[in-house]
Amino acid sequence: MQQPVVSCSMPSEEIKSLSLPVGWKCYRSPEGQKYYVNISTKVNGHQLLGASGHVLERPDVSLGKNSLSNQSPGSTSPARRQNKEKEIKETKITINCVTFPVPASALEQQLLKPSEWSYCDYFWADKKDPQGATVSGFEVLLQKQLKGKQMQKEMAEFIRERIKIEEEYAKNLSKLSMFPMAAQEEGTLGEAWAQLKKSLADEAEVHLKFSSKLQSEVEKPLLTFRGDNFKKDMKKYDHHIADLRKQQVSRYAAVEKARKALADRQKDLEVKTQQLEIKLSNKTEEDIKKARRKSTQAGDDLMRCVDLYNQAQSKWFEEMVTTSLELERLEVERVETIQQLLRQYTTLRHETDMFNQSTLEPVDQLLQSVDPAKDRELWVKEHKTGDLRPVDMDI
Amino acid sequence: MQQPVVSCSMPSEEIKSLSLPVGWKCYRSPEGQKYYVNISTKVNGHQLLGASGHVLERPDVSLGKNSLSNQSPGSTSPARRQNKEKEIKETKITINCVTFPVPASALEQQLLKPSEWSYCDYFWADKKDPQGATVSGFEVLLQKQLKGKQMQKEMAEFIRERIKIEEEYAKNLSKLSMFPMAAQEEGTLGEAWAQLKKSLADEAEVHLKFSSKLQSEVEKPLLTFRGDNFKKDMKKYDHHIADLRKQQVSRYAAVEKARKALADRQKDLEVKTQQLEIKLSNKTEEDIKKARRKSTQAGDDLMRCVDLYNQAQSKWFEEMVTTSLELERLEVERVETIQQLLRQYTTLRHETDMFNQSTLEPVDQLLQSVDPAKDRELWVKEHKTGDLRPVDMDI
Repeated sequence: MQQPVVSCSMPSEEIKSLSLPVGWKCYRSPEGQKYYVNISTKVNGHQLLGASGHVLERPDVSLGKNSLSNQSPGSTSPARRQNKEKEIKETKITINCVTFPVPASALEQQLLKPSEWSYCDYFWADKKDPQGATVSGFEVLLQKQLKGKQMQKEMAEFIRERIKIEEEYAKNLSKLSMFPMAAQEEGTLGEAWAQLKKSLADEAEVHLKFSSKLQSEVEKPLLTFRGDNFKKDMKKYDHHIADLRKQQVSRYAAVEKARKALADRQKDLEVKTQQLEIKLSNKTEEDIKKARRKSTQAGDDLMRCVDLYNQAQSKWFEEMVTTSLELERLEVERVETIQQLLRQYTTLRHETDMFNQSTLEPVDQLLQSVDPAKDRELWVKEHKTGDLRPVDMDI
Repeated sequence: MQQPVVSCSMPSEEIKSLSLPVGWKCYRSPEGQKYYVNISTKVNGHQLLGASGHVLERPDVSLGKNSLSNQSPGSTSPARRQNKEKEIKETKITINCVTFPVPASALEQQLLKPSEWSYCDYFWADKKDPQGATVSGFEVLLQKQLKGKQMQKEMAEFIRERIKIEEEYAKNLSKLSMFPMAAQEEGTLGEAWAQLKKSLADEAEVHLKFSSKLQSEVEKPLLTFRGDNFKKDMKKYDHHIADLRKQQVSRYAAVEKARKALADRQKDLEVKTQQLEIKLSNKTEEDIKKARRKSTQAGDDLMRCVDLYNQAQSKWFEEMVTTSLELERLEVERVETIQQLLRQYTTLRHETDMFNQSTLEPVDQLLQSVDPAKDRELWVKEHKTGDLRPVDMDI
């Protein structure tokens, strides 16, 4: 539908927004309508704005060669050829139905976030994947997100494997600590040995604690950090942006059609004008009037189609900026969350080594106080047979 | 055979010896012969010595009741019953052919090593085992030795089990460290993750080192500490001491036999003496002279048998002292060796925990420098599709 046209001189409040491209401003009109102004393009000293973030630019409303010079390089209309001959240089270029400034005339275009390597600045063009299929910049961003989710899942699997190893190790240690080996060793040495065997049970306990904390404090958070909703959200983004691109394509086709119609009308008008020069007649003047009216109408149609195309493009533009900034935020969150969970892993490992050390203290103490003389005393007291020494027999 | 008899007044050099019972002295004669003197027993103001560690005691050479009072309580000879009637108190008692002082008269007998609970003081008597079989004190000492050897063997088996557990644990850790999980994580987070995985390989290395040191520094020494010779040596000791006991038994039997013969001769002499009182005749005086000669000879025989018995007993006594002191030394050595090896075990465990800690340092460092912005920069540089932003199409 046609945009309402309002004058820029109207009083309006400016709205600051991070996602706003450099050189652009956003205003809210007294009626609460949002307007985007590209202050880098002034038209006849004033600017016409359209609602819902669409900006109308009208460098020239008259239908002259200059206006014809704005067809996509893809088109092969005679008008286009004619421009080439007259060497009027292109300032814009349309690729996959998206209109870019040609690099030469894009020098004044600064990055939205020059200091940040932000997603919103580097994924405007489409590219070809190894199989030669066209992949949009936004799909590249989505793939990064899905890969990140996959990495998170694989890390959780890795931690799970570690947990299993620790459980197995703990099981073996505690089994061994209950083996009867050398259980009959006696005295202070026997106590030290018993404590050494017990220390294996303590070690097992430490490793079991490690594995259970790994599960609750690392594996579980890694598994639950982004639920199934995540992939659904990505799909939503994907479809939303893709739909906007489709609309842009269809509106681009409409523009091409209207451009062709206008060219035909112009030709017809020229022919009739030539006829007038040859022999004057009322009949012909009628025809020329008619032809001029039709040509002007075709011009209005084209203008409307271009307006609709530009609406679609800037809607897509806006969604690209806001969504890529959201994906950027999600990636920062993912990296920081995983960093924090891996820190938790090393903390638990450090604890484990520390607790392990402590399982040895009682063993060391008892080994310190092993005493062969004491052990002999204990054993002799228990097993002695008699301390009366034999003496000679008398006759 | 008969011992050479020498006077105590001979010049001789004293030999000090730990294994010497209290109240005994040892001398070497000019001919280099060793003599043991029990200075607590003096005989007619002088002492008769036998070679090779045997001491002759002769409190009374005349054949009277006092001498008869020295039969073993086990014997049931009429002479013994006669003593009971006359209430002459026993000063010695023979059990399993070993002669002990009766507790009452043994009060002056001090321990050989009063301060030490030494084997050589507490295993002189035999005892009955649970099955009722007689076990000598020395066998009790030998069993302790064999049990000690068994404990040492079982400890080695225990360490071997621990080694196996460590090897298994190390194998699992290094296998896991090579899993491909999350291998495609990128940037600083990717580096930290890769290091975390590598740290498992380092951990594995630490536990492998632990197990191999356990083997070379604990298990092997435990296995080799006392070779097969040990049990052979114990058997030798066993047989040697047992043989001395057997000889003592046989010589005790000889004493009993001689005692019986003497008693018969004495009876015969009494009868003949009574006949003489009835009627005097040359014939009878001849008989009495003959009977007295035979009686004296029987007395000499008994004396010789007692000498031989006492030789056997004090040979056994000497071997008991020296061998039990050797077993005591072996046990001290065993306890101290095992104590030292178990200390080595705890040292290796401490090292392992320490080295384990250090495997985390590089991980912690890389986690420290994880940076989402840096990672985005790296990724964007590699994957960006285009930074030219779309602009509106002109008419």
